Amino acid sequence: MTERLKKQLEFIVEIDKIKQITRQTLLFDGSRYENDAEHSWHIAVMALILAEYSNESVDILRVIKMLLIHDLVEIDAGDTFLYSNERDDVQEKEKAAAERIFGLLPEDQSEEFLSLWNEFEEKQTPESKLAGVFDRLEPLMQNSRSRGVTWNRHQVSADQVRTRQRVIAEGSQSLWQYASEMIEDCVRQGWLKEKP
Amino acid sequence: MTERLKKQLEFIVEIDKIKQITRQTLLFDGSRYENDAEHSWHIAVMALILAEYSNESVDILRVIKMLLIHDLVEIDAGDTFLYSNERDDVQEKEKAAAERIFGLLPEDQSEEFLSLWNEFEEKQTPESKLAGVFDRLEPLMQNSRSRGVTWNRHQVSADQVRTRQRVIAEGSQSLWQYASEMIEDCVRQGWLKEKP
Repeated sequence: MTERLKKQLEFIVEIDKIKQITRQTLLFDGSRYENDAEHSWHIAVMALILAEYSNESVDILRVIKMLLIHDLVEIDAGDTFLYSNERDDVQEKEKAAAERIFGLLPEDQSEEFLSLWNEFEEKQTPESKLAGVFDRLEPLMQNSRSRGVTWNRHQVSADQVRTRQRVIAEGSQSLWQYASEMIEDCVRQGWLKEKP
Repeated sequence: MTERLKKQLEFIVEIDKIKQITRQTLLFDGSRYENDAEHSWHIAVMALILAEYSNESVDILRVIKMLLIHDLVEIDAGDTFLYSNERDDVQEKEKAAAERIFGLLPEDQSEEFLSLWNEFEEKQTPESKLAGVFDRLEPLMQNSRSRGVTWNRHQVSADQVRTRQRVIAEGSQSLWQYASEMIEDCVRQGWLKEKP
């Protein structure tokens, strides 16, 4: 076996650990919490189906690549809740995690995936903005279906959700229209409270 | 909301069910059985990392699409073990499942994904042959790491594994070389038996 293939296989075995990283959101059927591998799969398929709603034209392969690998850093850094106050502290941990985990790959691939991960984090390109849409939209849909279980458990307010989800508009105005209507509907139903 | 978006979202919610379809293989760490969403995510990443070993040049986006959606039919048809005798009976069930599930999408997407699923099943194109490599390689690696737990539970023989895994060579000669060495190593270790 070549040194190159050996490194690639080591990476492939390492990333299995993402299946053990539990998120804060329930599956759509509400039966249990979702893990990062399931989430990454689901939003990659969402991107395939909903790419036509992107504000700008995108290289869909790059969007899919970002979505498939964006959460690998949580193998070391763990899952941080979107509305947590600790999100800033976690950035350094995630950066170190990205370097360790993508660093397992041969140099060219290590650079490619580290660069894709950075692009996703910075949300400056059409591809990363569109990828960000699905990373937000899936848990929003899950929260809506579970009648706000996660929001209520963490005492998240309607304004926190409006502010955090607003980035959806940067990738897709039309999906933001759908998302914002869903948020307001959750408020009307009492599943998301103005003052929790 | 447009009728089109409504159909797309209905599909996105429906496919959540794949997270409940348990496979016959253990995670790489052996802690529990894998589900179809985790498997689909993992082999899509494998394709990104290992595409360079393809026998023929491929459209990698089409490979990834196939891998992300190939197991959706199991929502209706359930998971069938690779070495089961019932695999032929299951084909009709899977065909009907593909029509129902992809049929939830708007017509153009329904046609595209049904055609991708058929392409994956038929294994006639460079893309589907390469996609098939990862669908076989991941469980083979998992079985090897778990010291053949699944093979032994189902009394699978070394020749059954050699025959079924041989299709890897059609997509990638170099990954088949790695896979066949892994199979023979499992035989030497006693994890895979000539006569179980």
